Amino acid sequence: MKVKVSRKAHFNAAHRLYRPDWSFEKNDAVFGKCNNPRFHGHNYDLIVSVTGKIDPETGYVMDMKQLKDLIKAEVEDALDHKNLNVEVPEFKALNPTAENIAVVIFNKLRPHIDPSKELEIVLYETPRNFVTYSG
Amino acid sequence: MKVKVSRKAHFNAAHRLYRPDWSFEKNDAVFGKCNNPRFHGHNYDLIVSVTGKIDPETGYVMDMKQLKDLIKAEVEDALDHKNLNVEVPEFKALNPTAENIAVVIFNKLRPHIDPSKELEIVLYETPRNFVTYSG
Amino acid sequence: MKVKVSRKAHFNAAHRLYRPDWSFEKNDAVFGKCNNPRFHGHNYDLIVSVTGKIDPETGYVMDMKQLKDLIKAEVEDALDHKNLNVEVPEFKALNPTAENIAVVIFNKLRPHIDPSKELEIVLYETPRNFVTYSG
Amino acid sequence: MKVKVSRKAHFNAAHRLYRPDWSFEKNDAVFGKCNNPRFHGHNYDLIVSVTGKIDPETGYVMDMKQLKDLIKAEVEDALDHKNLNVEVPEFKALNPTAENIAVVIFNKLRPHIDPSKELEIVLYETPRNFVTYSG
Amino acid sequence: MKVKVSRKAHFNAAHRLYRPDWSFEKNDAVFGKCNNPRFHGHNYDLIVSVTGKIDPETGYVMDMKQLKDLIKAEVEDALDHKNLNVEVPEFKALNPTAENIAVVIFNKLRPHIDPSKELEIVLYETPRNFVTYSG
Amino acid sequence: MKVKVSRKAHFNAAHRLYRPDWSFEKNDAVFGKCNNPRFHGHNYDLIVSVTGKIDPETGYVMDMKQLKDLIKAEVEDALDHKNLNVEVPEFKALNPTAENIAVVIFNKLRPHIDPSKELEIVLYETPRNFVTYSG
Repeated sequence: MKVKVSRKAHFNAAHRLYRPDWSFEKNDAVFGKCNNPRFHGHNYDLIVSVTGKIDPETGYVMDMKQLKDLIKAEVEDALDHKNLNVEVPEFKALNPTAENIAVVIFNKLRPHIDPSKELEIVLYETPRNFVTYSG
Repeated sequence: MKVKVSRKAHFNAAHRLYRPDWSFEKNDAVFGKCNNPRFHGHNYDLIVSVTGKIDPETGYVMDMKQLKDLIKAEVEDALDHKNLNVEVPEFKALNPTAENIAVVIFNKLRPHIDPSKELEIVLYETPRNFVTYSG
Repeated sequence: MKVKVSRKAHFNAAHRLYRPDWSFEKNDAVFGKCNNPRFHGHNYDLIVSVTGKIDPETGYVMDMKQLKDLIKAEVEDALDHKNLNVEVPEFKALNPTAENIAVVIFNKLRPHIDPSKELEIVLYETPRNFVTYSG
Repeated sequence: MKVKVSRKAHFNAAHRLYRPDWSFEKNDAVFGKCNNPRFHGHNYDLIVSVTGKIDPETGYVMDMKQLKDLIKAEVEDALDHKNLNVEVPEFKALNPTAENIAVVIFNKLRPHIDPSKELEIVLYETPRNFVTYSG
Repeated sequence: MKVKVSRKAHFNAAHRLYRPDWSFEKNDAVFGKCNNPRFHGHNYDLIVSVTGKIDPETGYVMDMKQLKDLIKAEVEDALDHKNLNVEVPEFKALNPTAENIAVVIFNKLRPHIDPSKELEIVLYETPRNFVTYSG
Repeated sequence: MKVKVSRKAHFNAAHRLYRPDWSFEKNDAVFGKCNNPRFHGHNYDLIVSVTGKIDPETGYVMDMKQLKDLIKAEVEDALDHKNLNVEVPEFKALNPTAENIAVVIFNKLRPHIDPSKELEIVLYETPRNFVTYSG
């Protein structure tokens, strides 16, 4: 009797899509406007889901307050109002596409979630573009 | 060629999270503000999904009008504008967490859905907290 | 050059619509399901707007962080996870309709907003029902 | 390390639910208001998702700009501002239910998506009714 | 102490933008894709707002249940699942643009609203295009 | 018989709130996280509304296609995927708060809108913070 519990969160950040080992021209051809060297930015909407059995004691799969605090400590404090390329160590050598940001968020949260439970990350880069990753 | 058809519905209810066999202090430590003995409440948004083959006669997996009426009869009439703890028999001895409400809704609908089809419940307790259950 | 700045907030509460000086039958005829004596509840979405001149120093009409903190202190702390009829003094003798809740919120916030600025309250009782009040 | 990337799109169309080989009475009994011979219409919201490995070169599963252009060329140009029954060849002999439209969209896009990747279609006929198909 | 109360509603319809007294070419030049003679359609979202004093007896400006029923009787029953050009008398000689539909809805509702109260119509033709009319 | 027609648009940008003539400490005290010198960013949602009489010829206040194209040419091409502080001339000496961005957008569009019509700008910096300006 597994239930998935989901919590929405939010952060704002600047980023630029490019590879430092490519020429500007190649970056431009592949990443277009997203390669603006002056950066652009997004309001990222995040849905973190944890799937597991309901604890018969509490009726919870996981206390949503704990999940909210965990997202705050591990994700929002690390990424909110930041320049992802310049200020976030995980993206020093990793292009901050929505796909890669979702994987980074998954890896930040996974050690803090009970190993018997599954974790899923949905990350909206814009209201029209989003990605889903579950390990 | 399976398709999942989904229908959104809505109900409002009051509830309180607590276990009568625990002290008030323990309930408070575990459930915080949600243990307010005077109750609080939510607008619950519900998405009911049924997965099965498309009937080649009608082009439907299931008539959405029938699904809408079924949700009205089995879920909305039972839970809307109710105090879940006090007025809904299923929660007499079950803590009305979002997880448990989703399971109760699943169990209310399952007997009315063709056994060859799968059923999934998504229940939003708030726009930021939601749960998913599929048996 | 006046600009209106708006901030969304959120609280959950239980309530019941009725007048203690009316019979149950009259309350039932007027308020229907909303007169459930066991209470029901809502996720209230709130939009607080302040209209005034842009401060040329800061580029702000009002610091949104201050507005957020003010809504937290004056509205969320008073109403969130509460039973409006039983626990909120303003509704001891006032029916907690959406209209009256909006007026109460306006009156709570008005003294804390610069008198040269206008204040507007939009309160969603459900995603389909909402009210607007500006004094 | 598979990631699902999703892109939202939109089209408007008129349609009517009926089978030409049934009597008007039978169509009416089964499809109700949706059988209006003068047609009615919808704003269809579409979410197209592609699941695959992240390309380590680009950090993309698939370039969202390419996905957007593909949806434009294959789906929007074919269905937007059209009468589905009369003007879209796929529905000459197929009832344009949400289920069948989702299957038609899947079949239009599938040949253009890398065979190693999975494709999923979510189609909202209204904000309250939607279907999901993944082959 | 005036409050505006608002109720959201919804209807689906087919339509075509054109003037019968213009040539097809002129209609095409002015209305583009919206002049498709086979019709296209929309999910129209409607917000009806009534502004007036709070009745001190009930705490209501207007009973939202009555407003909901009025919208059902006057607007939804007349427009839902209809072809606006062909089946709705008001559009026999009036182009069913969003602007004109809003005016028609206003005129349908105005006689049923207390003359001391103001009426406002917001009509979404798509999530990105909407109009507002208040007489 | 005035009607307001509204069009939603969208752009992404990086920005930083600060005054070059203030010390970093003063900027930090006033603008907090928004003063990150490495920039952060947003998905800005924009609603442009034009109010005027319905043209009896077309049934339009203004052709929404023209309004869409105007927003693209004057606003999106100037601001989308840009660093507002560094790349947009209007913000060389103006702090890019939501209030100031709304005024800049108003001033960009006003000369292109018929002087007999009113113009209003609503700009969402985040889903919870937004501003309204109408000259």
